[in-house]
Amino acid sequence: MTTSIDFDRYDRVRPIRWTGEALELLDQRKLPFTVEYVRCDDSDAVAAAIHALTVRGAPAIGIAAAWGVVLAARAIEAADGAEAAARLDPAMQRLNAARPTAVNLAWALARMRRVLAVAGHDWRNVLEREAQAIADEDLAANRRMGALGAALIVPGSGVLTHCNTGSLATAGFGTALGVIRAGVAEGRIDQVFAGETRPWLQGARLTVWELQQDGIAPTLIADAAASHLMKTGKVQWVVVGADRICANGDVANKIGTYQLAIAARHHGVKFMVAAPSSTVDMATASGDQIHIEERDPGELFGVGGVRTAAQDVGAWNPVFDVTPHELIDAIVTERGVIERPDATAMRAAFGD
Amino acid sequence: MTTSIDFDRYDRVRPIRWTGEALELLDQRKLPFTVEYVRCDDSDAVAAAIHALTVRGAPAIGIAAAWGVVLAARAIEAADGAEAAARLDPAMQRLNAARPTAVNLAWALARMRRVLAVAGHDWRNVLEREAQAIADEDLAANRRMGALGAALIVPGSGVLTHCNTGSLATAGFGTALGVIRAGVAEGRIDQVFAGETRPWLQGARLTVWELQQDGIAPTLIADAAASHLMKTGKVQWVVVGADRICANGDVANKIGTYQLAIAARHHGVKFMVAAPSSTVDMATASGDQIHIEERDPGELFGVGGVRTAAQDVGAWNPVFDVTPHELIDAIVTERGVIERPDATAMRAAFGD
Repeated sequence: MTTSIDFDRYDRVRPIRWTGEALELLDQRKLPFTVEYVRCDDSDAVAAAIHALTVRGAPAIGIAAAWGVVLAARAIEAADGAEAAARLDPAMQRLNAARPTAVNLAWALARMRRVLAVAGHDWRNVLEREAQAIADEDLAANRRMGALGAALIVPGSGVLTHCNTGSLATAGFGTALGVIRAGVAEGRIDQVFAGETRPWLQGARLTVWELQQDGIAPTLIADAAASHLMKTGKVQWVVVGADRICANGDVANKIGTYQLAIAARHHGVKFMVAAPSSTVDMATASGDQIHIEERDPGELFGVGGVRTAAQDVGAWNPVFDVTPHELIDAIVTERGVIERPDATAMRAAFGD
Repeated sequence: MTTSIDFDRYDRVRPIRWTGEALELLDQRKLPFTVEYVRCDDSDAVAAAIHALTVRGAPAIGIAAAWGVVLAARAIEAADGAEAAARLDPAMQRLNAARPTAVNLAWALARMRRVLAVAGHDWRNVLEREAQAIADEDLAANRRMGALGAALIVPGSGVLTHCNTGSLATAGFGTALGVIRAGVAEGRIDQVFAGETRPWLQGARLTVWELQQDGIAPTLIADAAASHLMKTGKVQWVVVGADRICANGDVANKIGTYQLAIAARHHGVKFMVAAPSSTVDMATASGDQIHIEERDPGELFGVGGVRTAAQDVGAWNPVFDVTPHELIDAIVTERGVIERPDATAMRAAFGD
């Protein structure tokens, strides 16, 4: 597939940097006002950074975890890969436990285990090459996904996205935001709307900032304004990422995604999920089986250290939800486009 | 209709106090952390307070505007009501222009004009009695609505509400929150969920605080979590207020209401609108004709003085939306319940 997209122009942000000595993570809790990389010298620092949302986004936490394994390797001695795998297991389990919903974390760790199992005395180099490959493949997958997804969008369209699925959430370019970048670059998308994405405001804080770095001017809306926006006819596609795609095409993604899918169907707006194939989890039959992470209710009590909610209130803070496949018009991975996804279509694409 | 509701126990907050000399408004911008009444000595101070959201909620701004007319009367001399009406017209126009969407504002001012037109030399007393009547009737209407709406809810239910429609938004007891108060008092409602209601966080700041004053413990959710909540089966009714109810049953209410109605229908959750008959605007045929207020995009850029959005971003901040009557299961006013509202049912109830 050829594309005319100038990737460098539309993709300037990198959230994860491997220095050869340490992992540097762009601190996404401090964006958009402070651009600051946090240095992680060992795997527990990486696990803590994943848990604390210093780094977030399903693909990005997989990549960070892979580098976390490389850092963990610094702390052990082993004659070969098999011995290293056994000694690295506690650190890898701690990395795996840092976030529960995104499958990419477990997927990246499984890749590291797999290469380790067959590695000889140069197992340290094997691990480092695999971590780099995970990152490189993610960027390449995103660029391909971007072109594939954008091709579904007719010129002159408006799109609405949710959360942050961009360079900040990946090795670069982004998943849903990659589709949007590609659509803007190709002149298909005239207007980008971004939901602010409570409680963590990934849309207002991250997506807006990231797109601005690449010269794209999104329009911010309150999450609750999405249906009213759709009614105005200004958006033709909702484009979102995924934290886990099940064997039947059900998709776990940031809380609020499900609501957008219901509203999109109600208005005849199309709904696209863009995510790398590493997000596909054929071992999970349907969305009902996904463990939905519930975070500290305190995340709903304020913003930026300022308390806004009344004192002593209870809150329910699920940070993901499940969009059933019936509400999805297209799932886009680097392997291709699945229209009207269901178990049959998913098996045909990912059953191998 | 008899009811066993202990109104005093479940209704302790009053947002509007007339001292006989001035109007005192509970400053809703400072809640829930500071309970402070702002004193308005003239009608322009009332108009400014309405515009600035010191007082908000469709019924409450109507009541405040009525008292604003009483204050405006202090500044003029007139031999009778007709002469006073002419002299008060500029002040009444300024009050009317303070917020555009809620019909109650215009409705309350029209009531004041009407009594003025036939008043003699005691027109000042007539105005003051009418303002008090508007407030008293609102409280009575809310109590009746509460009982009528609660009767639709089967015991053991959970409810979700949006924005603040409580004592803070009315003369007391509230509209949708009155239904919820009555439902809790009668043991019909086990659990109350409140959407935080971005951007102004009326749910998190006001509804939670107000219910706590009356011993009710709501659970706060992000607006975007509503559909996921419905899917869990924990809510049987969405209960909201209204800023304007059209002749065909379409309802303008806080941004996000429309989205809740779509999601409720999708999940088989019932959707109730509770509002006094003063909210009904038979002169507006349908929701398409309602002017939707768009406020400063800056309201989306942060919370409590803390900026959260990236700099130099554009935003779209409509603060109301329209829920079409097809998505509404019941409109409850003090006059009764209209199930499955449409133009015919509305004409039968309000066509006189």
